Amino acid sequence: MSTIKPVLVVAGVRAGGTGAATAAAFARKGYSLALISRGAEDLQALVDDLKSAGSDATAFPVPSYSAPSISSVFQSIHTRYPSPHYAIRAALYNASHSIRKPFLELTLADFHAAQETIVEGAFAFSQEIIRVFKENDIDVDTGKRGFLIFTGSTTSIRGNRTTSAAAPAKWGLRALSQSLSKEFGEWNIHVAHAIIDGIINTPFSRSRFNDPPNWVENEDVRLNAEDIAKAYVYLAEQPRSAWTWELDLRPAHEKW
Amino acid sequence: MSTIKPVLVVAGVRAGGTGAATAAAFARKGYSLALISRGAEDLQALVDDLKSAGSDATAFPVPSYSAPSISSVFQSIHTRYPSPHYAIRAALYNASHSIRKPFLELTLADFHAAQETIVEGAFAFSQEIIRVFKENDIDVDTGKRGFLIFTGSTTSIRGNRTTSAAAPAKWGLRALSQSLSKEFGEWNIHVAHAIIDGIINTPFSRSRFNDPPNWVENEDVRLNAEDIAKAYVYLAEQPRSAWTWELDLRPAHEKW
Amino acid sequence: MSTIKPVLVVAGVRAGGTGAATAAAFARKGYSLALISRGAEDLQALVDDLKSAGSDATAFPVPSYSAPSISSVFQSIHTRYPSPHYAIRAALYNASHSIRKPFLELTLADFHAAQETIVEGAFAFSQEIIRVFKENDIDVDTGKRGFLIFTGSTTSIRGNRTTSAAAPAKWGLRALSQSLSKEFGEWNIHVAHAIIDGIINTPFSRSRFNDPPNWVENEDVRLNAEDIAKAYVYLAEQPRSAWTWELDLRPAHEKW
Amino acid sequence: MSTIKPVLVVAGVRAGGTGAATAAAFARKGYSLALISRGAEDLQALVDDLKSAGSDATAFPVPSYSAPSISSVFQSIHTRYPSPHYAIRAALYNASHSIRKPFLELTLADFHAAQETIVEGAFAFSQEIIRVFKENDIDVDTGKRGFLIFTGSTTSIRGNRTTSAAAPAKWGLRALSQSLSKEFGEWNIHVAHAIIDGIINTPFSRSRFNDPPNWVENEDVRLNAEDIAKAYVYLAEQPRSAWTWELDLRPAHEKW
Repeated sequence: MSTIKPVLVVAGVRAGGTGAATAAAFARKGYSLALISRGAEDLQALVDDLKSAGSDATAFPVPSYSAPSISSVFQSIHTRYPSPHYAIRAALYNASHSIRKPFLELTLADFHAAQETIVEGAFAFSQEIIRVFKENDIDVDTGKRGFLIFTGSTTSIRGNRTTSAAAPAKWGLRALSQSLSKEFGEWNIHVAHAIIDGIINTPFSRSRFNDPPNWVENEDVRLNAEDIAKAYVYLAEQPRSAWTWELDLRPAHEKW
Repeated sequence: MSTIKPVLVVAGVRAGGTGAATAAAFARKGYSLALISRGAEDLQALVDDLKSAGSDATAFPVPSYSAPSISSVFQSIHTRYPSPHYAIRAALYNASHSIRKPFLELTLADFHAAQETIVEGAFAFSQEIIRVFKENDIDVDTGKRGFLIFTGSTTSIRGNRTTSAAAPAKWGLRALSQSLSKEFGEWNIHVAHAIIDGIINTPFSRSRFNDPPNWVENEDVRLNAEDIAKAYVYLAEQPRSAWTWELDLRPAHEKW
Repeated sequence: MSTIKPVLVVAGVRAGGTGAATAAAFARKGYSLALISRGAEDLQALVDDLKSAGSDATAFPVPSYSAPSISSVFQSIHTRYPSPHYAIRAALYNASHSIRKPFLELTLADFHAAQETIVEGAFAFSQEIIRVFKENDIDVDTGKRGFLIFTGSTTSIRGNRTTSAAAPAKWGLRALSQSLSKEFGEWNIHVAHAIIDGIINTPFSRSRFNDPPNWVENEDVRLNAEDIAKAYVYLAEQPRSAWTWELDLRPAHEKW
Repeated sequence: MSTIKPVLVVAGVRAGGTGAATAAAFARKGYSLALISRGAEDLQALVDDLKSAGSDATAFPVPSYSAPSISSVFQSIHTRYPSPHYAIRAALYNASHSIRKPFLELTLADFHAAQETIVEGAFAFSQEIIRVFKENDIDVDTGKRGFLIFTGSTTSIRGNRTTSAAAPAKWGLRALSQSLSKEFGEWNIHVAHAIIDGIINTPFSRSRFNDPPNWVENEDVRLNAEDIAKAYVYLAEQPRSAWTWELDLRPAHEKW
């Protein structure tokens, strides 16, 4: 990649979560970071942390993951990380929307919120990313013009009693990733999807769950965001002869 | 069902298609028909045909399958087929949106059109239907308060190069059907999903496809809407001990 | 089928079970019955019952479902139901082998028993059946030379902690059925697979399970063999334009 | 792992193939190698190559992958790599049996050969391996007592016209791997399955296929065994919080 600085774009970042850990992991590989998220203040704090650790990171707050928000934020990203000095070569769509309710209690707004954040945002994000990737040259080591990954969950492969809003969106995201993987493989663009099956040890989940009681201490029963990030870095580095569309990630002791 | 007249509601009806054939098949079983579709004129013509054949059918044209359209049309349906004289006991969500384009040629409007017609409409339709079903008594023969089926396709289980708008929506619909099947089984509400794998012999497809040349004449290579309808009637009549969530339907000679 | 008598062959028959119920259901449609099973005495008693009910049924006891046993028993079937007076037009492979053990407690004999009964037997049975089907003419109503169905279960689609012997065999059976469905569709031979998800109310299961306490009385929580048989008859009668490879069958209240 | 030397056991090794490349990759990580294969002479040549490259490798030729052969060869492995000086900590079951024939041309011997090499061998191999793994201590970095991986293919997830012998065996192997992953995760034993989708560039495939004409030169259309091996090493090193049961691997330009 010579003197062109590679950039990772992440949508969906929260302190201590998968997006933040992935950003940090790619920064260690020499990437600049464009971080898209709601919650401008928290996002800026996270970017400040990354910068004090020596990374080149920029916050791109959005009011929502609607397609217009996504399109608009990419204009700012291109201004901040202009070609030919920078090239976006990796992207993670990690935004999600957690909602578990009995079907008849779901409002249309609930349904739309899941669709917008999970599918519409990913659609717009992918169009922006793939348009950029197609202009990149092919990396010699990996055979890639770019790497695009989506974060899924067990809800991506199984509808359940309380997931009648989330499951349609997560299945939709998975379908998008499969279609894109098939369409853009021959462009040497690598598209992947990860099924995260288990609770991730984040400040958010620690504040929310205490069942089983020792889940935070017991490394066998929950995911570390850093370990998910390692998997994403691994996938980004897979050489052209052996690319993965999908893998699952779960703690050693997870019941499934 | 004594003197209460059962009603089938179908969303997505076109002359000679799956919706129309299902309507006719349920009419022969004694159901009144509430038919929701775009294209008021064609819909009325189809309803007139059904009525001349002796069925009790009513046209409920909609401008779109958006949730508000669906909610609004159900008010008209309840007015036309009021309780306790009528009871909606079967429903088919057959509306779909065919779109095959390279990903980067898709507009946001394309994406939304697929989402709205396939997923949002089904979500709103299902809420209306299941609310009604929960008020029904349990049919002695089938053990059902009601039967709700969704029409899927191979795009429902496989993303492909030109289906990056359609596949997310159809996978989403399938996820919805699975979630609802799991949530409402214990309410004795039967929710099913059919994967139609092949071309259906309709006026529309006859006007559009002529490959292979003899496909209309060759009964082994395409689906008849009437045969899909028979499958839907069969599913509606399955007894409580053995309900199907999903089946596939394809012509004898289909390559798959 | 004019004056040629159609024959159903069933492998895996036990009083009150799926095989027996399917036999009775096809007998009511005019089929003669060739019933293959272990346990000669019980099999003969069941055949006697079918005969007193007016069916034409014959017992073909086997020492095992090994391929040689299956091949040998088909010679007897052809002798008893000779062409051109009889034509085998439907077949059910219903033999299974229930084994749930921790992996390290499984013996090689356990493993082989599951493989032999579930996969090897089905392989040999299918070769016998499809060779015969290919000689049949095509039925006008269904477009079929013959119908072959396999009984699967949730173990057919999910490996679990105690199914490391059963799951490989049941997944193997499902793979066989899918391969055959694809290969012989163009021969107008219909191959199907049913996933039975739940407990079946049979003398055997009644003697074995009493959890939940009222499961036998509660029609919403278990399958009736007769209802599975109805599904098999339905599939056998599907017309050529709309054949099902796979459906699932479960009680209304089944958790899944 | 202090002064205890880790050992990788591979079943199914051929010069230039996945097994050999995986052996070499683990050797570079400090593993001793126990290589099981048919074809004693070729196996010894391969072991000699590994040894000249500085690896500690031993050939364990087998006449077949039958369970008795596998059990017997493990006695030799334990003699050669005795505890506590050595500990088997990784294992690859890579043996397969390629057979593509129309169903009615398959002999029972064909069917058994696929079953024996693909499923029975894997069953026996897994029992030997997991018994050993359970005695290991838990590795601090990975949280594992051991890592067991199986090589699958697209035939593992799709039955096709000419795979009615291979698909039942490969689906069976995948089911075994899923059952074991679920049963032994809580023992900190990591079981994985890889779906290799595409042609692998080996001496064997180069001698056999020349379609498309430039497939050997074009790095985008075929897998390198070394890249599959990299994936296996990555999986072996996944930390306890994020283990993968299954991933797919295919060339950038593969049509799927």
